[in-house]
Amino acid sequence: MTDTKPRVASDLDGYFTKEEPRIRAELDEFLRIPSVSARSEHNADTARCAEWLAGQMRAIGMQASIHTTPGHPIVVGEWRKAGASAPTVLVYGHYDVQPVEPLELWTSPPFEPTVRDGKLFARGSVDDKGQLYIHLKAVEALLRTRGALPVNIVVLAEGEEEVGSDNLADFVAKNAKLLAADSVVISDSSMFAPGQPSILSSLRGLSYFQIDVVGPAQDLHSGGYGGAVVNPAMALARVLATMHDAKGRVAIKGFYDRVRTWPKKERDAMRKLPFSEKKFRHETGASALGGEAGFTVLERLWMRPTCEVNGQLSGYTGEGAKTVLPSKAMAKVSCRLVPDQDPRQIAKLFTAHVKRVAPKGVKVSVQYIHGGKPWKAELTGPLYDAARRALKAAFGKAPVIVGEGGSIPVVGDFDRVLKAPVLLLGFGLPGENAHAPDEWISLENFTKGLRAVATLYDEIGRAPR
Amino acid sequence: MTDTKPRVASDLDGYFTKEEPRIRAELDEFLRIPSVSARSEHNADTARCAEWLAGQMRAIGMQASIHTTPGHPIVVGEWRKAGASAPTVLVYGHYDVQPVEPLELWTSPPFEPTVRDGKLFARGSVDDKGQLYIHLKAVEALLRTRGALPVNIVVLAEGEEEVGSDNLADFVAKNAKLLAADSVVISDSSMFAPGQPSILSSLRGLSYFQIDVVGPAQDLHSGGYGGAVVNPAMALARVLATMHDAKGRVAIKGFYDRVRTWPKKERDAMRKLPFSEKKFRHETGASALGGEAGFTVLERLWMRPTCEVNGQLSGYTGEGAKTVLPSKAMAKVSCRLVPDQDPRQIAKLFTAHVKRVAPKGVKVSVQYIHGGKPWKAELTGPLYDAARRALKAAFGKAPVIVGEGGSIPVVGDFDRVLKAPVLLLGFGLPGENAHAPDEWISLENFTKGLRAVATLYDEIGRAPR
Repeated sequence: MTDTKPRVASDLDGYFTKEEPRIRAELDEFLRIPSVSARSEHNADTARCAEWLAGQMRAIGMQASIHTTPGHPIVVGEWRKAGASAPTVLVYGHYDVQPVEPLELWTSPPFEPTVRDGKLFARGSVDDKGQLYIHLKAVEALLRTRGALPVNIVVLAEGEEEVGSDNLADFVAKNAKLLAADSVVISDSSMFAPGQPSILSSLRGLSYFQIDVVGPAQDLHSGGYGGAVVNPAMALARVLATMHDAKGRVAIKGFYDRVRTWPKKERDAMRKLPFSEKKFRHETGASALGGEAGFTVLERLWMRPTCEVNGQLSGYTGEGAKTVLPSKAMAKVSCRLVPDQDPRQIAKLFTAHVKRVAPKGVKVSVQYIHGGKPWKAELTGPLYDAARRALKAAFGKAPVIVGEGGSIPVVGDFDRVLKAPVLLLGFGLPGENAHAPDEWISLENFTKGLRAVATLYDEIGRAPR
Repeated sequence: MTDTKPRVASDLDGYFTKEEPRIRAELDEFLRIPSVSARSEHNADTARCAEWLAGQMRAIGMQASIHTTPGHPIVVGEWRKAGASAPTVLVYGHYDVQPVEPLELWTSPPFEPTVRDGKLFARGSVDDKGQLYIHLKAVEALLRTRGALPVNIVVLAEGEEEVGSDNLADFVAKNAKLLAADSVVISDSSMFAPGQPSILSSLRGLSYFQIDVVGPAQDLHSGGYGGAVVNPAMALARVLATMHDAKGRVAIKGFYDRVRTWPKKERDAMRKLPFSEKKFRHETGASALGGEAGFTVLERLWMRPTCEVNGQLSGYTGEGAKTVLPSKAMAKVSCRLVPDQDPRQIAKLFTAHVKRVAPKGVKVSVQYIHGGKPWKAELTGPLYDAARRALKAAFGKAPVIVGEGGSIPVVGDFDRVLKAPVLLLGFGLPGENAHAPDEWISLENFTKGLRAVATLYDEIGRAPR
């Protein structure tokens, strides 16, 4: 039933060409809402963002509901008029965004969408408001041009992805009937390179910790006490320095016990990808790359686990000098995980390691903040066939299979609870600054993404069941 | 000419008893001026504080002058009517104070002097406004009760002690004639214990650094890049962890080359001091003490050098979790020095060490912020005899000889440039929070300090020349 040469249907293409200015203006509205889930001072903004999103769903002809949780609300949009015999697609995305600090490093304000050089800059532009919005507008295009979709659509948008999706797994489990689907589609990742559409085959998991080291009851004069009172910041440095061995391997006992060995075939395919180490290094601005010995950069990013400091604070950090012996030191540390590592088991190993190496004279505690499981896809079946055709139609090029170093914890939950294949179809690009100042989405990818996703729904609807 | 049993002269004692409420009110005025020398936003306050101090000197009958420097001004007060045959005493102190952060840990606001439990709480109360003020009021008492002092007095008050006294050595060198004196007296230290007057025989020096580690050009997503880009915070931890060996000795090559071996006699005297390790630990609030193996707590504080982290900052330190690979990491690190270590030579060794251990893939730089030389006193001669008598008179107990872990860099300069013995006579107490929230001075020590210093001037004037 499918063409041999995939293309974007002319009615959909025409619709997007005509409507794109309005669609972009609406996206700007979405991006202006500072829905920073990690910051309680933004709770009202985050709630307002959920309301705005539900309003948008209704405007395009979906039913929308807002579900409260112990944290931020979950928004569900439904269009089920394709009938019981048509397949159902569950689209997952998130409307919450990362914090914006350090603010002074943004070229334009994070919540004032600004276009420069074909890029739309704003917090959430690519992670994930822009990508979630592509799906809503694809639904809109099909409904407006044809009055119907060939598939039933359920859109699940959460507001806690950036803080660990604490309430999502529970919501999915309790609402398995509402969310029942034949396929799950998620756009919250990146293409391998500009012009190169990509299908994601793996995600790393995460275990995120805070280590707190407490020494004296309050900051002390470093002259009056230094040398006889254990310095918490120095103690923390000594703890962190034990996390890796000389070869860049994580030195926590048992850390690699469940790490899968990747098949040679997959490693070979990875090495065939048009990857330039020099370009990657240039993109990061780092003077040199590093990491675990014996693995390529892409292997280090996709198939190997990590242990990283995400933040650290102790004592006096202002202008000039203050001769203080700090009373405490804090580090946020997280491990990226790969199949079949388990976040809670890693949390146990991590905590045991820290306790074992903690210097005397200070109190060292580990708090497990959140985690998510790693994931690896099966790449066969009608969903993946449809995705390959839709991407080729919109981008004029067959997709490559890539891994992803980041985490989308809910993917594993969908796999397990809904028992449906998950397709990760991302429209970001390398260097998009997803968790950093000056986050952006490529406007070309946004435009082609609209066409790709509308075509994807069309193709899924046409596939033999 | 001196009594065998020293006592405070009744006219001076009576004067202080009568005038103390006013003296205390004036001190409160002094303490309310937020002369934080490290913070440029307080430059106007610091200048105002110098003016206030000069006004006070004039009010008690001294000549006062304010000397501008490339930093904060130096205030000099003079009373020279004792004549050319009388000895001249140079009093040194500082009117600048430490920063007050973290503000939320103050029980009462740092610049609103508040009395609780016989302690006067305010930033600068003990370090050093309160102690400097004792000297001015001692001069006032002698002038008001007797119309004259038996010694000429020059008071030198600087505004940059807490930021390294950058412009003081130069000022002292250029004004050696103005500052020429037979003795130098400094009250910027602490007594060994409540009720136990003390004479300080040694000070540690200081070399203060900032280490900056720069990795990627900006913060990166820890999933998208973690494992292949060297983490600056982890790199900094590895650098800091090399600073000490397993026995708590500083592991910088050549660090101990110039450290003097203390005579057994002095170490024995140190061990006879009524020092309770348990009480000291309780005072700090630390769960256990630590430091260099083979030395007592007092030896670690007074005769051994250190290397301490004073502050550290990297990446995301706010509420919740942010999965960021930081672009940079910073640590403020300082070494306390003992005779005959030299701050600039230690700076060279420190920098060479950091360069040697710096991991690849990040740029590591060391900035030498400031430093000061360590000092050790000769404890003989008329100045020290007078001090012993004055302290016994005011406190009813002979002073003990103690060391001090902190630094007063100018002491070495006075010794060298003015060629006059230096007496360090402190009225602080252990636990006074000199560089921390809730700084305080004991009101009993303030009261007795007034009497001790007035008696000291009296005794110096009576001593045979």
